[in-house]
Amino acid sequence: MNGAQVLISTLTGLGVDTCFMNPGTSEMQFVAALDTVTDMRGVLALFEGVATGAADGYARVAGRPAAVLLHLGPGLANGLANLHNARRAHSPVVAVVGDHALAHQRFDAPLQSDIASLARPMSGWLRAATSTTTLAADVTDAVRAACGPPGQVATLAVPADLTWSPAPADAGPVAAVGAPVTHGVDAGAVDEAAKALRSGRAAVLIGGRATDPRGLRAAARAAAAADAKLLCETFPANLHRGAGLPAVERLGYLAEFAEVQLQGLEHLVLADTQAPVSFFAYPGRPSSLVPAGCQVHQLAGGADDVAGALEALAEVLGAAAEPPVQPTARPERPSGPLDAQRAAAAIAALLPEGAIVSDEGNTSGLFVAGATAGCPPHQWLCLTGGAIGQGLPLATGAAVAAPDAKVLCLQADGSAMYTLQALWTQAREGLDVTTVVFNNRSYAILAMELDRVGAEPPGPRAKRMLDLSDPDLDFVSLARGMGVAATRATTADELTAQLQKALAEPGPAVVEAMVGRLF
Amino acid sequence: MNGAQVLISTLTGLGVDTCFMNPGTSEMQFVAALDTVTDMRGVLALFEGVATGAADGYARVAGRPAAVLLHLGPGLANGLANLHNARRAHSPVVAVVGDHALAHQRFDAPLQSDIASLARPMSGWLRAATSTTTLAADVTDAVRAACGPPGQVATLAVPADLTWSPAPADAGPVAAVGAPVTHGVDAGAVDEAAKALRSGRAAVLIGGRATDPRGLRAAARAAAAADAKLLCETFPANLHRGAGLPAVERLGYLAEFAEVQLQGLEHLVLADTQAPVSFFAYPGRPSSLVPAGCQVHQLAGGADDVAGALEALAEVLGAAAEPPVQPTARPERPSGPLDAQRAAAAIAALLPEGAIVSDEGNTSGLFVAGATAGCPPHQWLCLTGGAIGQGLPLATGAAVAAPDAKVLCLQADGSAMYTLQALWTQAREGLDVTTVVFNNRSYAILAMELDRVGAEPPGPRAKRMLDLSDPDLDFVSLARGMGVAATRATTADELTAQLQKALAEPGPAVVEAMVGRLF
Repeated sequence: MNGAQVLISTLTGLGVDTCFMNPGTSEMQFVAALDTVTDMRGVLALFEGVATGAADGYARVAGRPAAVLLHLGPGLANGLANLHNARRAHSPVVAVVGDHALAHQRFDAPLQSDIASLARPMSGWLRAATSTTTLAADVTDAVRAACGPPGQVATLAVPADLTWSPAPADAGPVAAVGAPVTHGVDAGAVDEAAKALRSGRAAVLIGGRATDPRGLRAAARAAAAADAKLLCETFPANLHRGAGLPAVERLGYLAEFAEVQLQGLEHLVLADTQAPVSFFAYPGRPSSLVPAGCQVHQLAGGADDVAGALEALAEVLGAAAEPPVQPTARPERPSGPLDAQRAAAAIAALLPEGAIVSDEGNTSGLFVAGATAGCPPHQWLCLTGGAIGQGLPLATGAAVAAPDAKVLCLQADGSAMYTLQALWTQAREGLDVTTVVFNNRSYAILAMELDRVGAEPPGPRAKRMLDLSDPDLDFVSLARGMGVAATRATTADELTAQLQKALAEPGPAVVEAMVGRLF
Repeated sequence: MNGAQVLISTLTGLGVDTCFMNPGTSEMQFVAALDTVTDMRGVLALFEGVATGAADGYARVAGRPAAVLLHLGPGLANGLANLHNARRAHSPVVAVVGDHALAHQRFDAPLQSDIASLARPMSGWLRAATSTTTLAADVTDAVRAACGPPGQVATLAVPADLTWSPAPADAGPVAAVGAPVTHGVDAGAVDEAAKALRSGRAAVLIGGRATDPRGLRAAARAAAAADAKLLCETFPANLHRGAGLPAVERLGYLAEFAEVQLQGLEHLVLADTQAPVSFFAYPGRPSSLVPAGCQVHQLAGGADDVAGALEALAEVLGAAAEPPVQPTARPERPSGPLDAQRAAAAIAALLPEGAIVSDEGNTSGLFVAGATAGCPPHQWLCLTGGAIGQGLPLATGAAVAAPDAKVLCLQADGSAMYTLQALWTQAREGLDVTTVVFNNRSYAILAMELDRVGAEPPGPRAKRMLDLSDPDLDFVSLARGMGVAATRATTADELTAQLQKALAEPGPAVVEAMVGRLF
C-alpha cells in the first residue's frame, strides 16, 4: 500500500466512505487509489465551496462525517466559507488538504501558501501529516476529532510525497472510532433550569442537537410543564418539524423581531445554543438580545448529553409523557400573480413527507417556514454561519446522505450565484433535489440592511450595487448549461404545476420563481 | 463626514478610484457613501473571487491598485485564491474587509471569524482599523504598502461602527502617495552579472517588472551582446510581446521541458524573478530546476530599479542600441476540424494590435503562445500563482483598466467553472472582452499529472474524477444566462468566423471552442 491507500482505507475503515472533492496534482495519488480502495465514493465538485458545503449537508443529515479533498492553500481557501457554516453547525467534517511534498515546501513554488493559517479559523482540529508511518493515526485522530461531540471541522494537511510513498505493512487503521463520548447529565444544571422555569416568565431556547425529534419532544414537554415559551435559535443546523412534532418558534433574524419574542423574560434556559446575539451590530442598538434583568441558564451543550438533559428536565418538572404537537395543516394551492407569499403557499401545498429542506431563501423565503409548519414531518437545514452560497451545496450533500428522501432547496438568487456549480454535481450524481430559485433581481436583504445601519436613503450609485438586473440572470439557462432540467414560473399557478412536476420526477430540477422584492 | 466617506475619499485622493465589490451588511455605509464621494467607481461582482481577480487584472494593466471590498471573514475567504495569484504577480491591491463593529466582536455572532489569520498568507501588509481618527492614515499606509515596489496585497479590516461614526473634521487624506520609491542600480550586481554572462554558457531569466517593453528591450540587448539565452519565467504577470518587441522564450510548465531549456547553463542571471523551481514535486525528480553546477546571480528584484539594472547591464556589455526583435508573422486562417492547434491558429490570425490576453487556456491553450508570437504587439497575463479561476476575473479587471483595448480571455473549461460569474460583471459594465472557452470536457491537465506523479494507470473511478462530461457543460447556455452573447464553434472555420465577429463588436462575448483533449 502507498500512503494514499492507507489514507483512504483508514477513512473507510472508520465509516467515512464519501469524499466530496476538487483534486489537483498534489491529490492525484488519492484519486488513483479510488480504484484500489473501492469502498470510498468520490463525488466530484466543480468548485471547492460546493464540496465543503456538501460535506456539511451530508453530516447534518447522516449524523457522521464525510471527507472533503482540497488542493493546497488556494483550494482550501475556496472551501472556507462553507467550512465556516459547517463550524457554526457543529457538523463533523474531515477536510483533507493536499500539500506539496515535504522536500518541495522550502522552494516556495507558485502554489505554496500558509495552509495552517488559512485552516485554523474554521477548524476545531488541525494537523499536518509528516510520515506514512503515522498517517493512519493522523486520520484516526482527525475522524475522532470531527465526530466530537460537538461535531467540528478537522483539517489534515497531507504532503504529496506521503501519498506516493510505500507505507509500512502495519500502517492500516489504528483503532475504530467508537460512539461519540458524551458527558452525562449534570443534575445541578437540570435543577437550576427547573427552578428557573418555575420561578417566573421563562423560555427554553434550543439549538444544535436539541432540535432532533428526541430533543424537541423533551424540550416541549418541559416547557409545557412549566408554562414556559419554547424557542429555537435563528438558524438551526437541522430542525425537525411538521405535523405531529412539537412546534417551536425560531428567533427572528432581525434583532427587532427577536427582541419582541424575548421581551419580558426573566429566565432563559439554553439547550445546546448560545445566548442570543444580534446577527450584525447597528448604530445605537445592543448586541446582546437577552432582555435586561433576564438570567441565562446553560442546561447542556458542548460534549453534554443534550437530549438526556432535556428529558431529565421534563421529569423533574413532572411533565406529561407527550408534548403538545403541531396539528396537520396545508394551505390551498395558490393562484394568481406570483409573490413571496404565494410561493410559500405553493411550497407548503406540495412539500412531501420526509423532505429535507435546504433553506437559503433569505428575504423571499420569509413566509415558507410559517406556511409549512403543519406539513408532514420534514427536516429544515439553515444558513448557520451566515456565509452565503450554502443552499445548493448543502442540498447536494443532503441528497447524497439520504438517497431516498426528496430534497428541496429554497435558494435566493444572489446567494445562488456563489456556488451554482453544485447543480452540475446534482446532475452527475442523479440527486433528487428540486431547487426553487427565488429571483427578485436584487440583493433584497441588503436594501433592507442599508436602511438599518443608519445610512442616508440610497442614491442611484448605491442602489446599483444591490441590484441584480442589468443584465437579468436567467436561471433556466444557467441550470440547463449544467445539465439540469429547468423551468420558469411567473404566476402562482405555474409555480405550483412546475413544482409538482419537479417533485414527482427523480433527479435534479430547477424552478425559477419570478417573485417581486419584499423590501 | 462619516468614516465610510473618509475611507473612500482617502482612497480616491490617493488615486485608487475603482472598487470591485461584494458588499454585505457590514459594508453598507461604504456602499451608501458612493453617492456622496462620487469619484469612486463601484464595480459589482457576484462572487468575491471575481472581485479579487479583477483587482489583480486591473493592477497588472493600469500599474496602480484598485480596491476590493469584501464582507467579513467568509467574504475574504472567497476572494483569497485570486489574492494568492495577485500576491504571486506582485500586483498592488488594496483589500478592504468589513468587520463587525468593535463592541460586537466579543459576542461571537454567526459571521465572526479570525480575519487576520485568513488574510495573512496572501497579504504583504495587514492592519485592523480601530478609530475614525486614524482611519485616513490607515488607508494611506495601505495604499502605500500596496504600491511597493514590489506591489503587494494590502489588507485593511474596517469595523462597521467606524464607517457610520462621524469622523473628525481633519480626518481627510493624510498625505499623497508619491511615486514608488525604488532603490537605485547596484553596480556590483551589474558587474557580477556581466562577468557571468561573458564567462560561459549563460542565460538571462526575466520576470516581474522586467517583462515590460523597457525591461524586455534592455534584457534582449544584454543577452544578445553576451551571446546568452533570453528566458522568461513560466507565468509572467504581464509579458509584452509580438512583432517589433524582443522575443523571449518562456520556461515550460513541465519540469522536463524546463530542464531541457536550462540544460548546460553555467550561469543564470535573474531579473525580478526567482531561481526556477518545479511547479509540483514528482517522485524521484528534483524540485530545483537549476542545472547542477550552474551559478545563479540576482541582478535586480524586490524594490530595485529592475529596468535600470538591465539597461546598465546592457551598457557594461557594450550592447547594440537596438535589440533583436520578433518579425511580423501571422498564420493563415485555419480550416477543417477543430483542435487545439487550429484554435491557436484562428486566434493568431485575428489577434488585434494592442490586445490584452488573459491566459488560463491550460492544456488547450498550449499552442496559442507560439502561434501568436509574431502578431502585432500585445500583452499576455498569466496564471501567476496556479490557483485556477483567474482567467475570467483577470480579463474583467484588465478591461476596466483599459477600456479602449480589446481583451481576449483564453479559458479552459474546468477552470472557467470556478469564477464564471465574471461574465455577468462584463455584461453589466459593457466590457470589451472576448472569451474563448476551450471545451475538452475534462480536467485534461490532471489526466497528464496523474501519470507524472507515478500513479498506476487510472481505473474508471479515478478517470471519472477528471472527466467533465456526464453531464456536458454548455457554455453557450451558461453565458447567455448571465447576459453575455455566446456561440459554439465545432470546426476551425466556425471558430474563425465567430471569433472575428466577437472581436469586431464591442462588449463581451463568449465563443465555446469544442476542442479535443490533448492528453
